[in-house]
Amino acid sequence: MISKVKNAMSTLVGGMMPHGHHHHHHNHHHAGGGAGGQSGGQDGLPPRFPYGRPDFLDLTPELLQYSTEHASRPVLTPKRGSRLPWRTGYAEVINAGKSMLNEDQASCEKLFVKKPSGKHRNSTLQEDNGDGTGIPLHFWGVFDGHAGSGAAIMASKLLHHLIRDRLGEICHLLENPTSAPPICLAKNGSPYQADSKKGASQEPEDPDAISDSTVRFHMEKVVSLESLVMGVIETAFKQMDDLIEKEKTSYAISGGCCALAAINLMGKLYVANAGDSRAIIIRNSKVIAMTNEFTPESERQRLQYLGFLRPELLGNEFTHIEFPRRIQHSELGKKMLYRDHSMTGWAYKTIIEDDLKFPLIYGEGKKARVMATIGVTRGLGDHDLKVYNSNIYIKPFLSCVPEVQVYNMDENKHGPDDVLVMGTDGLWDVTTDSEVADAVTAYLSCADPSDPMRYTLAAQDLLMRSRGVLKERGWRLPNDRLGSDLDLSSAIVNVFWTLILLLLLLLLQTNPGWRLSLV
Amino acid sequence: MISKVKNAMSTLVGGMMPHGHHHHHHNHHHAGGGAGGQSGGQDGLPPRFPYGRPDFLDLTPELLQYSTEHASRPVLTPKRGSRLPWRTGYAEVINAGKSMLNEDQASCEKLFVKKPSGKHRNSTLQEDNGDGTGIPLHFWGVFDGHAGSGAAIMASKLLHHLIRDRLGEICHLLENPTSAPPICLAKNGSPYQADSKKGASQEPEDPDAISDSTVRFHMEKVVSLESLVMGVIETAFKQMDDLIEKEKTSYAISGGCCALAAINLMGKLYVANAGDSRAIIIRNSKVIAMTNEFTPESERQRLQYLGFLRPELLGNEFTHIEFPRRIQHSELGKKMLYRDHSMTGWAYKTIIEDDLKFPLIYGEGKKARVMATIGVTRGLGDHDLKVYNSNIYIKPFLSCVPEVQVYNMDENKHGPDDVLVMGTDGLWDVTTDSEVADAVTAYLSCADPSDPMRYTLAAQDLLMRSRGVLKERGWRLPNDRLGSDLDLSSAIVNVFWTLILLLLLLLLQTNPGWRLSLV
Repeated sequence: MISKVKNAMSTLVGGMMPHGHHHHHHNHHHAGGGAGGQSGGQDGLPPRFPYGRPDFLDLTPELLQYSTEHASRPVLTPKRGSRLPWRTGYAEVINAGKSMLNEDQASCEKLFVKKPSGKHRNSTLQEDNGDGTGIPLHFWGVFDGHAGSGAAIMASKLLHHLIRDRLGEICHLLENPTSAPPICLAKNGSPYQADSKKGASQEPEDPDAISDSTVRFHMEKVVSLESLVMGVIETAFKQMDDLIEKEKTSYAISGGCCALAAINLMGKLYVANAGDSRAIIIRNSKVIAMTNEFTPESERQRLQYLGFLRPELLGNEFTHIEFPRRIQHSELGKKMLYRDHSMTGWAYKTIIEDDLKFPLIYGEGKKARVMATIGVTRGLGDHDLKVYNSNIYIKPFLSCVPEVQVYNMDENKHGPDDVLVMGTDGLWDVTTDSEVADAVTAYLSCADPSDPMRYTLAAQDLLMRSRGVLKERGWRLPNDRLGSDLDLSSAIVNVFWTLILLLLLLLLQTNPGWRLSLV
Repeated sequence: MISKVKNAMSTLVGGMMPHGHHHHHHNHHHAGGGAGGQSGGQDGLPPRFPYGRPDFLDLTPELLQYSTEHASRPVLTPKRGSRLPWRTGYAEVINAGKSMLNEDQASCEKLFVKKPSGKHRNSTLQEDNGDGTGIPLHFWGVFDGHAGSGAAIMASKLLHHLIRDRLGEICHLLENPTSAPPICLAKNGSPYQADSKKGASQEPEDPDAISDSTVRFHMEKVVSLESLVMGVIETAFKQMDDLIEKEKTSYAISGGCCALAAINLMGKLYVANAGDSRAIIIRNSKVIAMTNEFTPESERQRLQYLGFLRPELLGNEFTHIEFPRRIQHSELGKKMLYRDHSMTGWAYKTIIEDDLKFPLIYGEGKKARVMATIGVTRGLGDHDLKVYNSNIYIKPFLSCVPEVQVYNMDENKHGPDDVLVMGTDGLWDVTTDSEVADAVTAYLSCADPSDPMRYTLAAQDLLMRSRGVLKERGWRLPNDRLGSDLDLSSAIVNVFWTLILLLLLLLLQTNPGWRLSLV
């Protein structure tokens, strides 16, 4: 039986994963079909933003074409002299022969947080850096696109503006960091103090009403400014996701993307992650993890709980219960291992007809999928994404909310070799955190400390190691390692390399004067 | 306004918390009222088990009476000579003047896992220890009752039997620990191998069906024996909870309880926690945390998500959104800090009519409550628990599923001063993990290593420290510390002491011969 399923698998590989990207192999099949489309430009709609690489790479059309060469897989970096804010380094490499376009994007910006003015906000970088007043904000974003580049491009162009604008709304609170944010604000933004007598007379006490007699007792939570900034970032991600959905009626915005963002504001680094990209801080050669990955395995219980509470979302095709493998019809009435939304361990259950449906979460490691479709559970976009050949939407199971971790830069001493590394899963799939730390530390310790390119060169060096060497069976690491998933078939070796894409390095140097002078 | 709410609070304290237990102050009010009742014995139903203290304490009626003395608050321990399995130590102290009964319970058992025999299982300890064959299993349980002692007593008498019986069903797998559990079992318990040809002919391949062509590819998860034992424990907790519900139709089973259980099986210690009790391992004077607490604060997002997806459970009285304080009617249209199920940080929202409802989660720290009623979010029982003066049930928001953590005893060396400490929140509220570790380590290092009472004496010593000294304003710690919650009113000082109750210590000595000989 096992070999039969294995054979079926081998037969299907060609049909299922021809383009190799593990997040969205189905989307290539139904681009143009169904409600809306995944590829840009269909239905006669113009793209929201034209395709391209990050502006700071400043690529000519020739170079853009060259960047997609599978045989050479060039590692692209910013030009010498094109300084990124805060000594940021950057390098990217395309996927191996997946498509002509690189679906991943990055952004790197310095902005200023200001009170909203009367005129509508203007989303150009020029305005941001215009007069240099306001609270400085650094933003680094890594957007790992799938099923098209539209969502990733749009997020890389707009997310930092949304965050900046929302921070602007609480600008007066940021300017007084020593006082806790008021719980209630009047419309003009000033703290609102209710007139207690008036309030009491409007709402007479009723001894039987829950809201009055029993449970209304004094309690006022103190909310920190830091958690207010976290809330700004969380709600800005939601706003970004809503904006993609809204603008899909007017523009072609294809696919979805994982979003990883780092925001430097007032001495704190906020790292927000929705997806399976990863960020680590390397401080004094030691690794500090700044993200958790959100995958069908790490979010199994959340997804199963939703499927359990809202079975209609499973479209009568899926079961929220997890089994270690597909069940055959002949196994009805037998006992099989399972786990549901409440369990971490496994138990046996008697198989009923309903269990023959496909499991909501299926597969292991990099091959785990939600409804056999997508391998990440958080991100932006994907509003049209459906299970292949069905009308079952994936989006309700995806979350656009990032997990935000805060690193207090002022509480630690940093040297010029202390960096934040942000990268898509292609990097981390083949390189462990400590390997990255060792490689970066080794490179930087040899590089000229005064060279502004040193972080970009370190990023480039790291990507060269991770990209590996092209051999007859595909790209290989020096030690001939392929990665944990690649024992199935050499036909999908290239899949593995899809997401080795980009890397940001930034110096966690807390001297504010120097920080500003580098922009 | 703040002082008005404060005054309302002070007025309410007498009415709300007269009996002082923070988990269930409402239940005292509607005992006997509403559907079902919280106190034992009403409705003419007999108690499922008579009230008492753990059997191993072997209390006379006189001692039982003495144990409820508020003024002395005696620390109770097993008698010298009454050895508990595996050198377990035990001590308990009653709550201060809350009620005549101690609502908390403990159990400590050695059992044997055997294949289920033809005759129905017999739940007496005698049978368990009868012939000494089977796989030995040690069980320690701590049950922190609230709103009555019924659920805690029943769980302390039965939970270990349920776990033993469920383990019996996989006994043949436990006997072959080197081979992974089969994914599918025939009715006789032997591994089932489906006839692949037969299966295929019954279910012809349909190229358009999701279940066949697209997603059925080879995958078979390997499930470890350890995760099977975790699944047994998780499902046994559910079974225990279902049993309480079922038997409430025939017996008076009052209240609910947090449940903390430690199971020693085949060299591994499984610590399962549903509630806010805590277990730590002290190894070489260092603390290893074995539990997380489940409270309205730690489970806020799970509860809010349920309230968001199933608003009917909130009975039109509560909102799933959290606010830092109650909203006054006059604040409609203003902006207030809030967070919903998806947020960790806080943001401002414009207040609408619906936000005036009471928040599902409200309060901070030990005063945080679900629907203004209960301060823990996992446990057994509570099927009748309702919001005061309403028909809104709390149970859907409570989970009976424990978090199970595994400690591999064979992977570590242990000395006679290495222990597992299990205790209810009364201990941990006033004593930090490291204070407990220091106190236990200091005590054991001075105690005679050959004295079988040394662990009980250490437990007693620890409870004496935590119980404090009776002063005019109530029980105080030596440093006159009361605890973080007690800045409100001296009227509820005693509340704080409610749960200083019991403590188990056990020796993590991995010599199997010695282990068995001690029973």
